[in-house]
Amino acid sequence: MKIGTVIGSVWATRKAACLQGQTFLVVESCGEEIVAADQVGAGAGDRVLLATGTVASRYCMDAPVDAAVVAILDGDKQ
Amino acid sequence: MKIGTVIGSVWATRKAACLQGQTFLVVESCGEEIVAADQVGAGAGDRVLLATGTVASRYCMDAPVDAAVVAILDGDKQ
Amino acid sequence: MKIGTVIGSVWATRKAACLQGQTFLVVESCGEEIVAADQVGAGAGDRVLLATGTVASRYCMDAPVDAAVVAILDGDKQ
Amino acid sequence: MKIGTVIGSVWATRKAACLQGQTFLVVESCGEEIVAADQVGAGAGDRVLLATGTVASRYCMDAPVDAAVVAILDGDKQ
Amino acid sequence: MKIGTVIGSVWATRKAACLQGQTFLVVESCGEEIVAADQVGAGAGDRVLLATGTVASRYCMDAPVDAAVVAILDGDKQ
Repeated sequence: MKIGTVIGSVWATRKAACLQGQTFLVVESCGEEIVAADQVGAGAGDRVLLATGTVASRYCMDAPVDAAVVAILDGDKQ
Repeated sequence: MKIGTVIGSVWATRKAACLQGQTFLVVESCGEEIVAADQVGAGAGDRVLLATGTVASRYCMDAPVDAAVVAILDGDKQ
Repeated sequence: MKIGTVIGSVWATRKAACLQGQTFLVVESCGEEIVAADQVGAGAGDRVLLATGTVASRYCMDAPVDAAVVAILDGDKQ
Repeated sequence: MKIGTVIGSVWATRKAACLQGQTFLVVESCGEEIVAADQVGAGAGDRVLLATGTVASRYCMDAPVDAAVVAILDGDKQ
Repeated sequence: MKIGTVIGSVWATRKAACLQGQTFLVVESCGEEIVAADQVGAGAGDRVLLATGTVASRYCMDAPVDAAVVAILDGDKQ
């Protein structure tokens, strides 16, 4: 998974019907912006863990998303 | 998912039979050109959300596509 | 999907049994060389559309391939 | 698979319910930091083999993870 | 698929139980080192074709691997 920081969110009125009710956060990870579905409740500034690919879709009840926030990080031990 | 801007479309007469009827848009995302199936109705200049991989294929009735437009963005809150 | 140009092909005598009969084209896409299974009938110089990942395998009857030519492009409208 | 070196771990109190009990290691691979679920028992400094994508999720009982440590390397013969 | 050259192999005593009996080769492809399961019988110096992702796992009887040698190349026609 990738570690990223939530920097905003996006809205879409016209979208796949199966995306109704999904929240989409913009996450910055290593200089790249990724839009991820969020069911954990993350907000701007949170450091999060992203799962990508089919895994993310399955976690979001098979919605057509390829990235999802799966955790909000407390801290690291390096 | 990636955010991109629709910059055109492509046509193919010779193609996989199961691609009949699919619309293919060229989407520019972070300097990269991605061809994505579109079932949302996006057009040139629209900012869109792309889902990639098996997720995109499933969304397009299992057609052999690995990228799909799943939403047209209204705006961002950053 | 990626747009690429067919620049050649590869041969293999020793290979996975389930790859018998597959044609493998070398496709140049954005400076990268990708080997893709071809069931559409593309040839050197053709501009093609590539599907990658599990999607490509499914399109090729579950053969162990992760890239496939799914269309030969006629032209673009940009 | 990628070869990487374990450089730390991360904690999350708020996370997907199905991630309870998973250990997450931070692995450095070719200058990139990847967070991977670990069921092999790797620790800081270990050189490990990472599997990514749906494969990693399946290995971790379908948890929403896209990277997993699948082996701790003894040595290379190059 | 990617074309690469076998440059060595790796060993692991501590690993996922389902990896017992798998041979892991280190393959150099475009400056990147990829560890791939091998069931074709490739050796150092061989130019090989790699399949990646879930496709590789399925080819290796669902083992948790995300890259596999699927062919040893005879030659190219470019």
